[in-house]
Amino acid sequence: MKVKINGVQKDFRTVWMENSVVFMIDQRKLPHRFEIYRSKSYVETASAIKNMVVRGAPAIGATTAFGMAQAALEFKGDNFLKFLRYMESARKIFRETRPTAYDLFYSIDWMMKEMRSATSVEEARELLREASQRYADESADRCRRIGENGERLIGRDSRVLTHCNAGALGCVDYGTALSPIRFAKYSGKEPFVFVDETRPRCQGSKLTAWELLQEDIEHSIIADNAAGYFMRRGEIDLVIVGADRIALNGDVVNKIGTYEKAVVARENGIPFYVAAPQSTFDPGYKTGENVEIEERDEDEILYMWGIDSRKEFNKVRIAPEGSRARNPAFDVTPWKYISKIITERGIYNPQDISKKY
Amino acid sequence: MKVKINGVQKDFRTVWMENSVVFMIDQRKLPHRFEIYRSKSYVETASAIKNMVVRGAPAIGATTAFGMAQAALEFKGDNFLKFLRYMESARKIFRETRPTAYDLFYSIDWMMKEMRSATSVEEARELLREASQRYADESADRCRRIGENGERLIGRDSRVLTHCNAGALGCVDYGTALSPIRFAKYSGKEPFVFVDETRPRCQGSKLTAWELLQEDIEHSIIADNAAGYFMRRGEIDLVIVGADRIALNGDVVNKIGTYEKAVVARENGIPFYVAAPQSTFDPGYKTGENVEIEERDEDEILYMWGIDSRKEFNKVRIAPEGSRARNPAFDVTPWKYISKIITERGIYNPQDISKKY
Repeated sequence: MKVKINGVQKDFRTVWMENSVVFMIDQRKLPHRFEIYRSKSYVETASAIKNMVVRGAPAIGATTAFGMAQAALEFKGDNFLKFLRYMESARKIFRETRPTAYDLFYSIDWMMKEMRSATSVEEARELLREASQRYADESADRCRRIGENGERLIGRDSRVLTHCNAGALGCVDYGTALSPIRFAKYSGKEPFVFVDETRPRCQGSKLTAWELLQEDIEHSIIADNAAGYFMRRGEIDLVIVGADRIALNGDVVNKIGTYEKAVVARENGIPFYVAAPQSTFDPGYKTGENVEIEERDEDEILYMWGIDSRKEFNKVRIAPEGSRARNPAFDVTPWKYISKIITERGIYNPQDISKKY
Repeated sequence: MKVKINGVQKDFRTVWMENSVVFMIDQRKLPHRFEIYRSKSYVETASAIKNMVVRGAPAIGATTAFGMAQAALEFKGDNFLKFLRYMESARKIFRETRPTAYDLFYSIDWMMKEMRSATSVEEARELLREASQRYADESADRCRRIGENGERLIGRDSRVLTHCNAGALGCVDYGTALSPIRFAKYSGKEPFVFVDETRPRCQGSKLTAWELLQEDIEHSIIADNAAGYFMRRGEIDLVIVGADRIALNGDVVNKIGTYEKAVVARENGIPFYVAAPQSTFDPGYKTGENVEIEERDEDEILYMWGIDSRKEFNKVRIAPEGSRARNPAFDVTPWKYISKIITERGIYNPQDISKKY
């Protein structure tokens, strides 16, 4: 992704490794400050995941891969048996960072498999270092292909609604929902993006708007309440969102509010697309109905975080003392509201997904 | 409405007059502080309307009526011709407070008519004083009857979704959408209310939640994005909202987001009710399509107001510097999504409204 540094666009990934240092765009500071978090040890990398320096399942997966490689590079000595026990403890530390991100576990297991052929510490180190880079590169590549595939669905001057941040910041690069929009921009189509602010955590206002600003993609932030208004007035041509999990029948679990947007889009005859890599398809669920939905801390509803007039991070309470809130983080959008699912392999009807994966 | 003062419920109206002083619940401070604003002159009352000490069309109408009476009481001398010129200038000052609130103009004209029979300053003063009290009483009474009528639609332990604040604070008393909920509570039905926070101005979290707390009505604040989630899970039995304007065909103009809720409610077979007094029906519009929708300051989207950890009013910026927002304040819900309209006269199908008024 491009990031403007003193007005000049530079290429960045959300997370990368140089020698044994893991670098991450510090997402806790965005959109107000662009800072690179440098993690010099795998324990620090695990704690950066836990503390949400990075968020978004694919980004967490890649950070974990780098963290596992970092652990190997940190190991002192050449006792292979000790090394294997040490890597088991590293695996455990990463497993305990974010309990619900599927990519985290996938990445840990993938890395452990990659070093299976090693017979020495030196070999294992080299295998893991190479594997972590490959993991990140392939993750970025999948998003690039989602972008190239999805770009065909965006016309010249199309006005696209997106919800939450399914952008480069949640992945290694490009993003999922934002990738087709990026490629539409690169091919000169001048898309315009309506950015749902995405209460309660405002990933739309905070992260999606920031990413679009960096690449000079025209956009307006809107209250989540206003999406239907713009749809009904014919000001939105298509909707693209990401997905946290996709069931066998094509039901999509995604950020809270996705379901409302999908229903209103269908009511207005507006195509509703979901962009997601293969890793989002979960053969463990026949439909979305049984996916457990996490309810997060009610303070996300009762308060709002941002920066105050002194440019310091601050939070303000909105609701009266004594009122409580309910805060489901995701919802299920039944497949019938989804026009197409855009993947790195192609564009499919939601009900055909199980035949493809 | 009830307001808890040191834990004890006391009766309050949103606005009232004693001698020549107009008292208002200061809504700029809610829900964090309960303060009564005392306005000692009509110029001050007009400026309180302008500065949103009171908001909500019926509340603005009553405040204006009191303000006009206050103007008459302030007039020195008994020169009737001078008095009439003076009242014309008072009318002008009130007209310029809030350009879009229909009740404001209605109230001014109504008050001017009420003093037509006067032949002296003394007579006019007395007519206006009495008329202003009558205006407020009748306004409260209409809301009371909306509550009594609408209460029948709420069952025991019903779970009701409401959007924005169509409560006592926007009226003189009782509210419109909240009035049936209050009366359900009074009759022992123990309703539970899902309160949409109602971005961008959060009248749900700030005002509706506060009103419900005062009367011990069980509720949870939710992100606007979560309403569809709870509807789909069968956790919402009915929806009641207010209205800013109702067209001849039953189309309803109301706070942004109302349309989305109505579409999703219908999709889930959940009744969607609009509660509004007669004064909301506007024979000037055949349908809602041509009603001009105000776009408000984009800062309402880019920032959030509340109180900070030092208990001081503060605002935080959410969005990146450089991003813009669009902020339509209202939307149009076509009549076909509305189950019934609850008025002070009875409960009607939206398409029959024009025959009734």
